[in-house]
Amino acid sequence: MKTWVPILNGSGFGVNNLPYGVFSRRGELPRVGVAIGEQVLDLADLAAAGLLADRRWFAAGSLNAFMAAGRTVWQPTRERIITLLTDVSYRDEVEPHLSPVADVELHMPFEVADYVDFYSSREHATNLGRILRPDSEPLLPNWRHMPVGYHGRAGTVVPSGTPVVRPYGQHRGQEGPVFGPTAKLDIEAEVGFVVGTPSAYAQPVPTAGFRDHVFGFVLINDWSARDIQAWEYQPLGPFLAKSFATSISPWVVPVAALEPARVPPPEQDPEPLPYLRCDEPWGLDVTLQVDLNGHVVSRPPFAGMYWTPPQQLAHTTVNGATLHTGDLMGSGTVSGPRRDQRGSLIELTWNGDEPLELPDGTKRTFLEDGDTVRIQATAPGLDGMPIGFGDVTGTIYPAVR
Amino acid sequence: MKTWVPILNGSGFGVNNLPYGVFSRRGELPRVGVAIGEQVLDLADLAAAGLLADRRWFAAGSLNAFMAAGRTVWQPTRERIITLLTDVSYRDEVEPHLSPVADVELHMPFEVADYVDFYSSREHATNLGRILRPDSEPLLPNWRHMPVGYHGRAGTVVPSGTPVVRPYGQHRGQEGPVFGPTAKLDIEAEVGFVVGTPSAYAQPVPTAGFRDHVFGFVLINDWSARDIQAWEYQPLGPFLAKSFATSISPWVVPVAALEPARVPPPEQDPEPLPYLRCDEPWGLDVTLQVDLNGHVVSRPPFAGMYWTPPQQLAHTTVNGATLHTGDLMGSGTVSGPRRDQRGSLIELTWNGDEPLELPDGTKRTFLEDGDTVRIQATAPGLDGMPIGFGDVTGTIYPAVR
Repeated sequence: MKTWVPILNGSGFGVNNLPYGVFSRRGELPRVGVAIGEQVLDLADLAAAGLLADRRWFAAGSLNAFMAAGRTVWQPTRERIITLLTDVSYRDEVEPHLSPVADVELHMPFEVADYVDFYSSREHATNLGRILRPDSEPLLPNWRHMPVGYHGRAGTVVPSGTPVVRPYGQHRGQEGPVFGPTAKLDIEAEVGFVVGTPSAYAQPVPTAGFRDHVFGFVLINDWSARDIQAWEYQPLGPFLAKSFATSISPWVVPVAALEPARVPPPEQDPEPLPYLRCDEPWGLDVTLQVDLNGHVVSRPPFAGMYWTPPQQLAHTTVNGATLHTGDLMGSGTVSGPRRDQRGSLIELTWNGDEPLELPDGTKRTFLEDGDTVRIQATAPGLDGMPIGFGDVTGTIYPAVR
Repeated sequence: MKTWVPILNGSGFGVNNLPYGVFSRRGELPRVGVAIGEQVLDLADLAAAGLLADRRWFAAGSLNAFMAAGRTVWQPTRERIITLLTDVSYRDEVEPHLSPVADVELHMPFEVADYVDFYSSREHATNLGRILRPDSEPLLPNWRHMPVGYHGRAGTVVPSGTPVVRPYGQHRGQEGPVFGPTAKLDIEAEVGFVVGTPSAYAQPVPTAGFRDHVFGFVLINDWSARDIQAWEYQPLGPFLAKSFATSISPWVVPVAALEPARVPPPEQDPEPLPYLRCDEPWGLDVTLQVDLNGHVVSRPPFAGMYWTPPQQLAHTTVNGATLHTGDLMGSGTVSGPRRDQRGSLIELTWNGDEPLELPDGTKRTFLEDGDTVRIQATAPGLDGMPIGFGDVTGTIYPAVR
């Protein structure tokens, strides 16, 4: 597949990717587009010009209507866009609907219904267990039997670039709690997937139903206040330590684009219960990169995640809980076995005991005001062309009262 | 205040209450109404007839648009409805817009944005601590310093009457987990409030902002699978044990209707941090009643809750988390000090060790297939007329696979 759109060598946005997003040109309403090279293709205008079958999905401020339409719409739409961008006979008609990404504003790509966050990296769960519960087994007894997860706050999932204001909260003090801005503001580098097709009430979705229900993947930075978390999380789990902001990347990479990135996941021992077994390998060879103020601090390997996305989906619905369009499920922090593969600062600095030294001579335990974090990722794609994700960035603003 | 609508003595739906809901007549689209006596007043038709200022809020399948309009709309609307129902000169114009509740279908009253569930009864938290962690202090160190809470699944909040299908899940077995239908299906009798007016990004809402943001109250049955919960809840909190279904009552009681029910809450020791202090008493003298298959099993007193709704709201936003229209916050199980005031079966039967004997001669530890649970509530209202809540009911259906 070769597109007539000029694409830089090594671009993660070739015609084999075509991630969906929501963008606007100055003074215009947001609409749906796909990224191609350094440009965005306006699907609303394409549909209005009669080049796509249906306009309803694209002249919208979110992807939700298109996501809800289901796989029988996603698949022919993707094929049609590929045709339009590879068959040079369409060039004259299509080219006017391309805008440089640099000239548009990218918005929240979809409305989040429920947000579930998992804890599926064995290395991350083990590190956190060692740090937070040093006197006991790092992995709790349930961890190897299920993808442990919980609900986060859907209403504070924000698009890349949204300022992150340092949150206030209660932390453990010498004599009872103290109240103030968090001193342990952290990141969690994650990969998430978003549900398109809803499920029926009280009907579990099997692992084999993943492609029917899931629209695509995004990157997530699940900002975390570790001191608030340590004080509040027993017995009902993290709440305010996470709920102030969760950033996602602006482009949703279609499941179809990641098929060439599927790899066998780590062996699971003990063998999971039948409802968690998969007929196909669903590890995904996505390599993340975490930059702090422009310096690479980690390259977490998503391929090493113990629990895979179809297992997370099947677990979430095994009790009959319904899926809704816009449900976002995060992998949990992606961490590998090496220090430079850890996806959070609490792991990279071992809860602050081993500060990171940045090439500019500064040191970090946790985030300081003004710090900017960028997470990006790449995966192998069709024909050897890499699949890129949109970057998810955020800058820390001082606490306000 | 006296209404010209015929009202049975002791009705909880006098003109001092006027809860909002969404209903439909056979073959018609859902719209917004208020309950008055045994009837429902059609606000969409009233507005179309020019008797209410604005039609947009009411010809809708949910209360969300009206809730989002804010207190400056809620207050005059309530005053106008009171006038229409008390000034007999309006009777001829208004009466055609009343329908017997028995003739209409009641729907989900609002779309839930985020669902937060608290744990604010000291008696309930103490009982659960004793049952689940018998060897340690029942109340964890954070409990007296903050209204402990967590996010539940918004997408499975369902209206009263929705069947509750017994969920499958993992439970702890002799050697690792077993998979099967829950054997410990339970209820949690709660009172919840719903947010109307959103808040700004990174701007906490103080306790004094409660009336500006909160639209009204509902009853909640937070169905719980105790065996699934015990196995999964460490370290991230309850997930599948709760996410299969949460039922709410069909009528939203306005905050204004409950003003006469405000009472001093229990003394808080230690004194809470400044952001959790209230200038006004916000205990609410609501008495719940839990019926199992028609037999009263408990009368939990909401007035005894340790943490109050304004404290829950202020805590949820103290980290800057935004509020959205439709955010639902549940109190957590309401339990009083006496056995017949406990709001869950795990407490009433002490985790099954002390079965309940029902007047029909049957015994219960947890719920059996075919059981029906009904939660109702009443509070003192203006002029000595009680304030009723809509009942929240649910019947258990057998597990399906």
